[in-house]
Amino acid sequence: MKAYIGLDIGGTKILGALYDETGNCLAIEKKKSKAHEGQDKVLQQIFKVIDRLLDSADNISLEAIGAGAPGIIKDESIIEFSPNLPFTKFDLGALIVDRYCVPFVLGNDVNVAMLGEWKHGKYSSKRHIVGLFVGTGVGGAIIINGELYTGRGVAGELGHMVINPEGETCGCGAKGCLEAYASKTGIQKAIVKAIDKGADCMLIKKIEAGEILKSSMLENAYQADDKVVVKAIDQAIDYLGIGLGNYINIFHPELFILGGGLIESLGEAVIPRIVARAKEVAMPSLMDDVVIQQASLGDDAGVFGAYQLAMTYKLK
Amino acid sequence: MKAYIGLDIGGTKILGALYDETGNCLAIEKKKSKAHEGQDKVLQQIFKVIDRLLDSADNISLEAIGAGAPGIIKDESIIEFSPNLPFTKFDLGALIVDRYCVPFVLGNDVNVAMLGEWKHGKYSSKRHIVGLFVGTGVGGAIIINGELYTGRGVAGELGHMVINPEGETCGCGAKGCLEAYASKTGIQKAIVKAIDKGADCMLIKKIEAGEILKSSMLENAYQADDKVVVKAIDQAIDYLGIGLGNYINIFHPELFILGGGLIESLGEAVIPRIVARAKEVAMPSLMDDVVIQQASLGDDAGVFGAYQLAMTYKLK
Repeated sequence: MKAYIGLDIGGTKILGALYDETGNCLAIEKKKSKAHEGQDKVLQQIFKVIDRLLDSADNISLEAIGAGAPGIIKDESIIEFSPNLPFTKFDLGALIVDRYCVPFVLGNDVNVAMLGEWKHGKYSSKRHIVGLFVGTGVGGAIIINGELYTGRGVAGELGHMVINPEGETCGCGAKGCLEAYASKTGIQKAIVKAIDKGADCMLIKKIEAGEILKSSMLENAYQADDKVVVKAIDQAIDYLGIGLGNYINIFHPELFILGGGLIESLGEAVIPRIVARAKEVAMPSLMDDVVIQQASLGDDAGVFGAYQLAMTYKLK
Repeated sequence: MKAYIGLDIGGTKILGALYDETGNCLAIEKKKSKAHEGQDKVLQQIFKVIDRLLDSADNISLEAIGAGAPGIIKDESIIEFSPNLPFTKFDLGALIVDRYCVPFVLGNDVNVAMLGEWKHGKYSSKRHIVGLFVGTGVGGAIIINGELYTGRGVAGELGHMVINPEGETCGCGAKGCLEAYASKTGIQKAIVKAIDKGADCMLIKKIEAGEILKSSMLENAYQADDKVVVKAIDQAIDYLGIGLGNYINIFHPELFILGGGLIESLGEAVIPRIVARAKEVAMPSLMDDVVIQQASLGDDAGVFGAYQLAMTYKLK
């Protein structure tokens, strides 16, 4: 039986899945990335995931491997630069092709997850789609005429639209990016700022211990009506609404997908509020025919998108 | 000889040009739109322009007519809504096809002008291009994979990206759009505001007479170092820079075209400053491989783009 592997190579974990030709998942494997132990270690972990997936099924003929990784990807093979992985100008594709003797296709993780959401959902017939994924940062992906759009290489940096030129400094160096307010990092910064000014907050111990807040912690504090957390998340919602409205004015897409850990945690509560704010920003009537949909695959979007990427190899 | 007509149907004037198959311009015609006299009058003016162009050359066989008009265009034939023309849900294409018995293709004026700039210049081989046109308003156009991108119909409203959510109210109803600061309208508003606060300005008489300032007036006052005008235009440059940086983060295009009456007037003086501000906004290194170019055709972009649109009919 012909089989394909999809990999989601993250800074924390490596997820892999084995699929048959019709998209049925035959096996799943997960390992820590061990990014702090360096390049060779991460590579070993990737190989282990692939090896175990291959061992898990009998009578399969591996046709291709697809993968997503954070950062700037070149030629569907090279990790040019990654914020979370110890790879720089690293030709991951060459090593994988050498070891497994099958075609390998690599993409940016957000783009690959978008591909997964698109191909898996009921919207696979749509041709123009924009996705905004809110987690540690804010990532974006664009599908135009039924293809991922990357421009000269790294288009779709949708988290780095400056919305408040005099605002908070973002990790990218600019001031007032969407990400500086709407990401988990931005929300945590706003909470820290309020605590530093003397405000009380139920997450104060975690903040003082230097913890990075999880989406679930933020959600719990939000549900418990913690004033500091509510204010920070409300601000994030406001900026996400402005961002959504701006992107609808720019792309007038058929479908807009909102996803990522924070949206998943807060999901039903926040999406109508983001949409309401977007309506104040988008040109009159422009939003009427845009479907706005929460992402549905969660963590599985990455591996399923990577499988789709592997499948595209057949078309070349 | 096979010939094509390109029309630029504006709120003030109708420009038309007759072209041969290789893009040589055989004749030019210009008439006032007389938009305030209503739909039938504008239609008569359009017909007059076409008739005169046809009378101007012997032995031609008209193959198709292309046109650009401001507003929302449907099905390459219908003016759904126009801010500057007395046409609503008006099937201009049906009337032209009926009268001249040739194919007719209609597009949004900014998109059509972009097509003209692209096809005429030395950048016709580029596949991913974004254009920002600064005049009375701020218009935008997007070419992706060598085709105009319009999404569900009206994508590319690049002047209506909210950059300052607490800022000036824009004509579209939202607050803090790029257009609210960077357009001639936005600049005039800033000047009026300063004068109302008691500032002196060399354009004060024109403002008091209720005149709409022309690009050339603004340029003269800018060159004469009029403090109020310099401040308003500097603010426009600042916002255009933020907009340019944002759009590079989003599209990472091969080519970015800056055009429109205001850019043409201020041209060489402002583009390097817009680019410098954009560099503070765009992700590190993202601007390095984007060519940023001033539009080169001026008023001719509309008719030449419309001719290109007429030519596309052959491909269908």
